[in-house]
Amino acid sequence: MAYKDEQLHEEKVFKDPVHRYVHVKDQVIWDLIATPEFQRLRRIKQLGTTNLTFHGAEHSRFNHSLGVYEIVRRIISNFDNRPHWNDDERLLCLCAALLHDLGHGPFSHSFEKVFKLDHEQFTQQIIMGDTHIHKILERVEAGFSKKVADVIDKTYEDKLVVSLISSQIDADRMDYLQRDAYFTGVSYGHFDMERILRVMRPIDDQVVIKSSGMHAVEDYIMSRYQMYWQVYFHPVTRSAEVILSRILHRAKYLYENDYLFKLKPLHFISFFEENVTLSDYLKLDESIVSYYFQLWQEEDDAILRDLCERFMNRRLFKYIEFNPNLQMNEWMELYQLFQKAGIDPEYYLVVDSSSDLPYDFYRPGEEGERLPIHLLMPDGGLKELSRHSDIVEAISGKKRTDHKLYFPSDMVDELNNGSKEKQRIMELLYG
Amino acid sequence: MAYKDEQLHEEKVFKDPVHRYVHVKDQVIWDLIATPEFQRLRRIKQLGTTNLTFHGAEHSRFNHSLGVYEIVRRIISNFDNRPHWNDDERLLCLCAALLHDLGHGPFSHSFEKVFKLDHEQFTQQIIMGDTHIHKILERVEAGFSKKVADVIDKTYEDKLVVSLISSQIDADRMDYLQRDAYFTGVSYGHFDMERILRVMRPIDDQVVIKSSGMHAVEDYIMSRYQMYWQVYFHPVTRSAEVILSRILHRAKYLYENDYLFKLKPLHFISFFEENVTLSDYLKLDESIVSYYFQLWQEEDDAILRDLCERFMNRRLFKYIEFNPNLQMNEWMELYQLFQKAGIDPEYYLVVDSSSDLPYDFYRPGEEGERLPIHLLMPDGGLKELSRHSDIVEAISGKKRTDHKLYFPSDMVDELNNGSKEKQRIMELLYG
Amino acid sequence: MAYKDEQLHEEKVFKDPVHRYVHVKDQVIWDLIATPEFQRLRRIKQLGTTNLTFHGAEHSRFNHSLGVYEIVRRIISNFDNRPHWNDDERLLCLCAALLHDLGHGPFSHSFEKVFKLDHEQFTQQIIMGDTHIHKILERVEAGFSKKVADVIDKTYEDKLVVSLISSQIDADRMDYLQRDAYFTGVSYGHFDMERILRVMRPIDDQVVIKSSGMHAVEDYIMSRYQMYWQVYFHPVTRSAEVILSRILHRAKYLYENDYLFKLKPLHFISFFEENVTLSDYLKLDESIVSYYFQLWQEEDDAILRDLCERFMNRRLFKYIEFNPNLQMNEWMELYQLFQKAGIDPEYYLVVDSSSDLPYDFYRPGEEGERLPIHLLMPDGGLKELSRHSDIVEAISGKKRTDHKLYFPSDMVDELNNGSKEKQRIMELLYG
Amino acid sequence: MAYKDEQLHEEKVFKDPVHRYVHVKDQVIWDLIATPEFQRLRRIKQLGTTNLTFHGAEHSRFNHSLGVYEIVRRIISNFDNRPHWNDDERLLCLCAALLHDLGHGPFSHSFEKVFKLDHEQFTQQIIMGDTHIHKILERVEAGFSKKVADVIDKTYEDKLVVSLISSQIDADRMDYLQRDAYFTGVSYGHFDMERILRVMRPIDDQVVIKSSGMHAVEDYIMSRYQMYWQVYFHPVTRSAEVILSRILHRAKYLYENDYLFKLKPLHFISFFEENVTLSDYLKLDESIVSYYFQLWQEEDDAILRDLCERFMNRRLFKYIEFNPNLQMNEWMELYQLFQKAGIDPEYYLVVDSSSDLPYDFYRPGEEGERLPIHLLMPDGGLKELSRHSDIVEAISGKKRTDHKLYFPSDMVDELNNGSKEKQRIMELLYG
Repeated sequence: MAYKDEQLHEEKVFKDPVHRYVHVKDQVIWDLIATPEFQRLRRIKQLGTTNLTFHGAEHSRFNHSLGVYEIVRRIISNFDNRPHWNDDERLLCLCAALLHDLGHGPFSHSFEKVFKLDHEQFTQQIIMGDTHIHKILERVEAGFSKKVADVIDKTYEDKLVVSLISSQIDADRMDYLQRDAYFTGVSYGHFDMERILRVMRPIDDQVVIKSSGMHAVEDYIMSRYQMYWQVYFHPVTRSAEVILSRILHRAKYLYENDYLFKLKPLHFISFFEENVTLSDYLKLDESIVSYYFQLWQEEDDAILRDLCERFMNRRLFKYIEFNPNLQMNEWMELYQLFQKAGIDPEYYLVVDSSSDLPYDFYRPGEEGERLPIHLLMPDGGLKELSRHSDIVEAISGKKRTDHKLYFPSDMVDELNNGSKEKQRIMELLYG
Repeated sequence: MAYKDEQLHEEKVFKDPVHRYVHVKDQVIWDLIATPEFQRLRRIKQLGTTNLTFHGAEHSRFNHSLGVYEIVRRIISNFDNRPHWNDDERLLCLCAALLHDLGHGPFSHSFEKVFKLDHEQFTQQIIMGDTHIHKILERVEAGFSKKVADVIDKTYEDKLVVSLISSQIDADRMDYLQRDAYFTGVSYGHFDMERILRVMRPIDDQVVIKSSGMHAVEDYIMSRYQMYWQVYFHPVTRSAEVILSRILHRAKYLYENDYLFKLKPLHFISFFEENVTLSDYLKLDESIVSYYFQLWQEEDDAILRDLCERFMNRRLFKYIEFNPNLQMNEWMELYQLFQKAGIDPEYYLVVDSSSDLPYDFYRPGEEGERLPIHLLMPDGGLKELSRHSDIVEAISGKKRTDHKLYFPSDMVDELNNGSKEKQRIMELLYG
Repeated sequence: MAYKDEQLHEEKVFKDPVHRYVHVKDQVIWDLIATPEFQRLRRIKQLGTTNLTFHGAEHSRFNHSLGVYEIVRRIISNFDNRPHWNDDERLLCLCAALLHDLGHGPFSHSFEKVFKLDHEQFTQQIIMGDTHIHKILERVEAGFSKKVADVIDKTYEDKLVVSLISSQIDADRMDYLQRDAYFTGVSYGHFDMERILRVMRPIDDQVVIKSSGMHAVEDYIMSRYQMYWQVYFHPVTRSAEVILSRILHRAKYLYENDYLFKLKPLHFISFFEENVTLSDYLKLDESIVSYYFQLWQEEDDAILRDLCERFMNRRLFKYIEFNPNLQMNEWMELYQLFQKAGIDPEYYLVVDSSSDLPYDFYRPGEEGERLPIHLLMPDGGLKELSRHSDIVEAISGKKRTDHKLYFPSDMVDELNNGSKEKQRIMELLYG
Repeated sequence: MAYKDEQLHEEKVFKDPVHRYVHVKDQVIWDLIATPEFQRLRRIKQLGTTNLTFHGAEHSRFNHSLGVYEIVRRIISNFDNRPHWNDDERLLCLCAALLHDLGHGPFSHSFEKVFKLDHEQFTQQIIMGDTHIHKILERVEAGFSKKVADVIDKTYEDKLVVSLISSQIDADRMDYLQRDAYFTGVSYGHFDMERILRVMRPIDDQVVIKSSGMHAVEDYIMSRYQMYWQVYFHPVTRSAEVILSRILHRAKYLYENDYLFKLKPLHFISFFEENVTLSDYLKLDESIVSYYFQLWQEEDDAILRDLCERFMNRRLFKYIEFNPNLQMNEWMELYQLFQKAGIDPEYYLVVDSSSDLPYDFYRPGEEGERLPIHLLMPDGGLKELSRHSDIVEAISGKKRTDHKLYFPSDMVDELNNGSKEKQRIMELLYG
C-alpha cells in the first residue's frame, strides 16, 4: 500500500480538553507528530507571556496544532461526497493544518520585532529544509512538501484548501479561541462550533456558511472580539511583553558593544547578528530563553540584570493610558525627567499600542490575505456576512487602538522625595 | 493597623479555570504570592512528565498552590461562627495552604529518588531560611514562619488546622483531582466540592463530614481511584519517568567517573555530590533541566545522548506487563541477553512498579500521617467512612501493584535478525 | 423572635441545575414556597410552547422563580456593609424576587391577548388578595404585602430595590437567559454572572456596574440578543402559538354562539365572558388546558377539532416570510382564495410579527419602565452603557421586526390539483 | 426508492441538551416521531414525581426516547464495516431504540401496581395495534412491526440487536443516567460515553467492551449506583409516590363502593375496572391525571380530598427509617394507635421499601433478562466485568434495601396533646 494511504492498525486518540478527542488514523500524520520538529512545539507556549496574567494559560503550541488538525479533520469528514470537494486533497489539508504553526519560536512577537525574524518563513524552511518533517512529506509523494508549504503560505492554487487553514473563520482561529478560553478560564470564547461545522459548505474556491447558521457565526465573531480585548491585549500581558523586548534589546546592545557576558550567550549570537540558521532557530525554545534570563539576573550590567529579575519574578511595569501622538509634550518632558533622574527611558519608559499587535478581527476589504465570510443564501447566492448581520456590521471596520505608557513605579517611588523631578514625574504620571 | 490585619484596598481576583475565581483580600497573601520563591513555582509543572501522555497537562504548581489556598479560604469562610473554630487561625491556615508545595522541584519524584532529596524538607527550609517568604511571615508576628512550617509538617498542635491541609479529604487533594482532570481533559476527577464544603464541620482536632454528605465523599474517593490509575500511573507517563531517572543516573555516573562534559553542568554539581544548598535548589527549575538535556543530546557519551534525545523528542520506551518477583528467571535471562546484544540493561531494561509511586488512596490504619475521614452521624457520633460506605469499604485497604517492564523496542528491532539473541529476546518480550 | 427574623434551624438547599444550589435560610421564604399559589407555578411552563421546538424546554416557572430569588440573594449578600445599601430591605427584596411571576397563567401570551388579561395584575391580586401568600406576608408586618406588590409593580419608593427586580440587567433576566439556555441546550445565553454580581454597586436609586466589568455586561447583552432571535422568536414556536390562540378564539366564538360542547367547558367560561375571578384564574393551569384541548379533539366543530388535534400532536402550520404592509394585494388575494377553497382564513391564514412579542433588549430612551444600565467610571461618575460600548451602541435602538405568514400546508396540498385556486395559492405561497 | 431507504432531503437535527444534537436522516424515523402516539410522550414526565424533589426534573419521555435513538445511531455508525455487524439491521435498531418506551403512561410505577398494568405490554400493543406507528412500520416491510416489537421484547433472534437496547450497558441506561443527571442538576451521572461508544465491539450475539475501556465502564456503573440512591430512591420522591398510589387506591375503592363523584371520572373507569383498552390507555396522560386530582381536591370524601390536596400542593408525608420485618410489634401498635386516633392507617401509615423499585444495577447471575457486561481482552477472549474490576465486584450482587415509614406529621401534631395515643405515637415515631 502506498505510504499516503497507510492507516494505523487501530485509530489512535489524544485526549484533548477542548475537542474531547483528537483522532488519528493516517500513518503520515502519526509520523509527523513524532518528529523532533513537531515535538519541539511542546516547549513553546501558545500565549507567550499571558500566563503571567491568566495563570492557567500555560498550554503549548503543540496543543493548538493538534486542535487545528482535528477541526480540519472534522470539517473534511462532513465534506465527503459534497460537490466541489475533491477528497484527494484530504491528506494535504490535514498536513497543512497540523504544521501551520511549526515555525513559531519562543515569545514570537517580541523576538520577531527585535531580531527581525518571521516565523512564517521558518515554517516554510522547516517544511522544505533538511528535516524529519520534510522527509516524511516527500515520502507521500515527490513535491508534496511544497504543496503543504504553499497551502500554509496561501499561494496554493486550490483556494478552497487554503481557506480551511486561513480565512476569517478557519480552523486555526476556531481552535485558538476555544483553547485559549479554556485554559485562561474566561467565559468568552465559546461558540457552537459543532453547528458551524455542520453549516460549512465547500464552493469553488472557498468555504462558505449556510445562512441558517449565521447566528452561530455572529457568536464566533463576538468571541473573537471579546478574547482580543479581554485576553490577548490585556495590559498586564503587554507589560511583560514590554520588559521581554527590552531585555532582548539590551542583550543585543551589550553584545554589539563588546560587553563580556559571564557565560557566552551561544544560543543567542546568531540572533544578535541577525543571521539565524534553521538549526539555530530550532534550538531556541522557551526553556533556553528562560535559562539565559536566569543567568542574566546575575550579570554586571544593571539594566539587563534588573529587567531579567523583573521578568522572572513577575515584577512588572505599571501602566497608564497615554497617547504619545496627542501628548507629545508630556512625552518629551517625561523622557527628559527620567534621564535626569537616572532611569534610562529607553528601557524604562515605554509606550505600547495594541494596534501594533495582530488585531485582525473582521474588517472586510482591509486585509488582503484573509478571506471574508460569505453566507450561502437559500436562493444559492452568496452574501458577505457584514451585509447581513447587524452585529458584525457594527464591529467590522472599526479599528480600535489602545495606547499605554509602561514604567517601573517602584523606581519612581524610590526617587528622592524632595526632588523637583520626582514631583513633576508623579504629576505627569498620576495626574 | 497591624500587618496581619491589613486588607487590600480592593479585593484582587485571579481568574482560575477550576474554581472560577481565586479571591485575595489579605495583604500578607498578596505579598507572599509576589515573592521569587513563589513565582518560581510557575516553572515547575504540577504533573511532571504527564504532559507527554495528556498534552493538556502543562499546568504548573503555581496554579495548584493558588487553588489549595482558595479551597481553604472557602472552607474557613463557612466555619465562621461555628463552635470549635478559632478564627485567629485563619491567616495561618491560608498561608500554610498557599505554601505547602513550595519545596517542590522539577520532576520531584525522579530527582528525589536519584539524588536522595526530600521536597518537604526544602519547603521547611524556604519557610524558615533567609528568603522573601520568611521575611514576610515574620512580619506577621515573630515565630509565625515556624507555625506555618509546623502546620505543613503536621506537627502543629492544633490538629484541626493540620487536617485542612493534610488528611484524606484535604484542600490539597480536592484541588489537584479537579485541576488535573481539567487540564488533562479526562472525565474523571469530578465531584461535588461545593456540597462537600457545605457539609464539612470542625470538631476538636479534625474536620469531619456530616453523614448526609457521604455520597459526595464516595464520589470524591472514586475520583481519586480513577485518577490514580487513569492519569497518575499511566504507563506512558511512567515510561518518560523511567527515561528521566536513567538520564539523571547516567549524568551522575559520568560525573563521578570524571567524564568531561562539553559544558560543565554547573547547576547539577551539588546534586551529583549530594550536598545541595537551598540556593542551588531554588535555581534548578524545569527550564534549566531542559536546557541541559538539550545540550546533552550532543554529548559524546552514547547512552546519555540517546536518553536525552528520547526524552526531548518523546521517543519513549515500550512496556509489557512483567512482575520480576514471579518472573525471576526470565528477568535474569533478559538482562544477560541485553548485555550480550550490547544494550546496557541498567539503562534500557527497567522494571517500574506503580506502588513505588505515591499511591495513597483510602487505606485506614495503614498510613500514620493521613487522618481517615469521619462522618458526623445524626446522633452526634463519629463513624469512620469505610464502616458506613459499601463502596469505600470495597476499595480501602486493597493495595494494587502494577509491574511493568520498559525497554526501547526500536533498539531491539535493530538487532541482527539472524541472531539467536534477538530471537530469544523477542520471544521473552512479545511471547 | 419576630417572624421576619426567624431562621430555619439548618439552611435548606434546592439542587438547581443553573445556579448549582438555591439557599434558603429565612422561615418566611420557606413558608412562601410551600403555599399552593407558589406550588401552582410547577404546572406552568416557563416558555409556553417552546418545548415543541426545543424539546428540553419543559422547565416551569417554579424553577425560574427560585432562580431569581437566588440571584437577588447573592447580589444582596455582596451589598452587605456597602454605602447606600439598607439591609432592612433584604427580606422585601427576596420576597419580591420570589413572587414576581406569581400571576402567570398557562401560555400567558396567547391567553392575555385573546381574553384581555394581564398577568401582572393577577400577581398583584394574589399578593394582596385572600391567599396563603398574603397571610404570610402580613405576618411579617402589617402592610408588608403592599410593599412587595409595589416593588413588583415598580412603584415602590426605594428605586434601588426596584432595580434589582426590574431593570435592563435585573435578576429576572439574568436567570431566564441562563435557565432557558440550559434547558433548550443552545450555546447562547452564557455570560459571566459571577463577575457581573461582583461589579454591581448600589448607588442611590439604582444598581450600577463598575466600568471594569463592562465586557461581561456586553456578553450578557449579546446573549439576550441571540436568545431572542434563536429561541424566543423561533418561527416553529410561533407557529404553535398561532394555533393556540386560534383555538382560544374559536372556543370563545363557539361559546358566544351557543355551540353545545360535549362537556361544558366550566374552567373556561369566565374567560370567555371576560370576568375572571382570582379563584378561576388560579385553577387554570396547563394541565387543565391540555385536558380540554384533548377533549376538543373529539368535538363536532371541524375547526376546533382540527386545531386541537394539530396542537396536541404538533402538526404545526408552515410559514413563509410575508409582510402584509408591503404585500397588501397578495394578502387580500390569498385571503379570498382561501375562502373560496373552503379554508377559513380567520383560522388558517395568520400573519404573526415578532415585534408584537415582548422584544425588549437594550433600547435606551425608548422604554419608560426599564432603567438603562449605567457604568460606574473610575472617577466616580456614571456613564450610560451604550455611550461606552461599541457593541451595545450598535445594537441599541434598532427595532427589528419579522413578519411571517402561517398556514396549513397539508390543507393546501389536499386541494384539487386541477383547480385554479390551488395553482394560484401555490404561486403566491411558494413563488 | 423503497420507503425504508428514503432519506430526508436535508438531515434534520433536534437540539438536545445532553447529546448536543440528535440527527435524523431516515424518512421512517422522521415519520415515527410525528405520530400522535410518539408526541404523547411529551405529556409524560421521565421521572414521575421526582420533580417534587429536584425541581429541574421536568423532562419528558419524549426527550429520553430521542436520546436513546441518538445513542444507538452513534453506536451503529461506529459498527459500520466491522465483522459480525449486519448493516441491514440498522433501521430496525433505530426504530426499536426510538419506540422502546412508547407504552409508558403517567407515573407508571404507581399506576402499574395499583391497576395491575404493564407498560411493556402496551408498548407491544401500540406497535402491533391499529396505530399510526404500526402503519408506518408496516410500510417499511410487511412484518417489520413485529420485528421491532420483538427487539423491544428481547425475543428477537439476533441477540446483538437486542443487546443494544437492553443490556447492562445499553443505550437506554446511558441516556437516562446522563439525562436525569442533567435535568436534576446533580453532579453524579457523568461518565465518558464517547469513550464507551468507541470501545464497543459487536461480537456474535452481544456488544462487548474492549478491556482498555474498563475504567470508563466502571465510572458508568458508579454513576448508576449514585443515581439510584441519590435520585431515583430519594425519600422525598418516594413520599410523593406513596401519596399518589394511595390516591389511586382510594379512588378505586370509592368507585367500587358506588361513591358518587361530582364529575364522573370517565378517563379512569376502565382502570378501576381493570379492563383498559389501548385507546383508553393512550388518552390518559399526566395532564388528565392532574385535571382529576385538582377536581378531587373538592370532593366530599375527606381522604381523597386530603390526599389530592397534598399531592398537588406538595404537602408530603414525613418519613423515618422503619423495617416492618424487624419492628413487627411497633408496626402493629402504630397501626392500632392510628386507627384509634381516627387517622386511617391504610392511607396514612405506609411502609415503602426501595427494593420494590426497579433496582437493577449490576448483579451477574441474578437477572435473567439483562446481559452482563463482557470485556474483550487483548487475547481475544471475553471476561465478565466483575471478574476484572475490583470496584464492580465490590458492588455487584449486594442487594441493599431501604425501608421507610411514611406518615403525615401534621395530622399527628394536631392530635389532642393530652391524649395517651398521641404521646405513644410520638414516642414510636420520634423515639
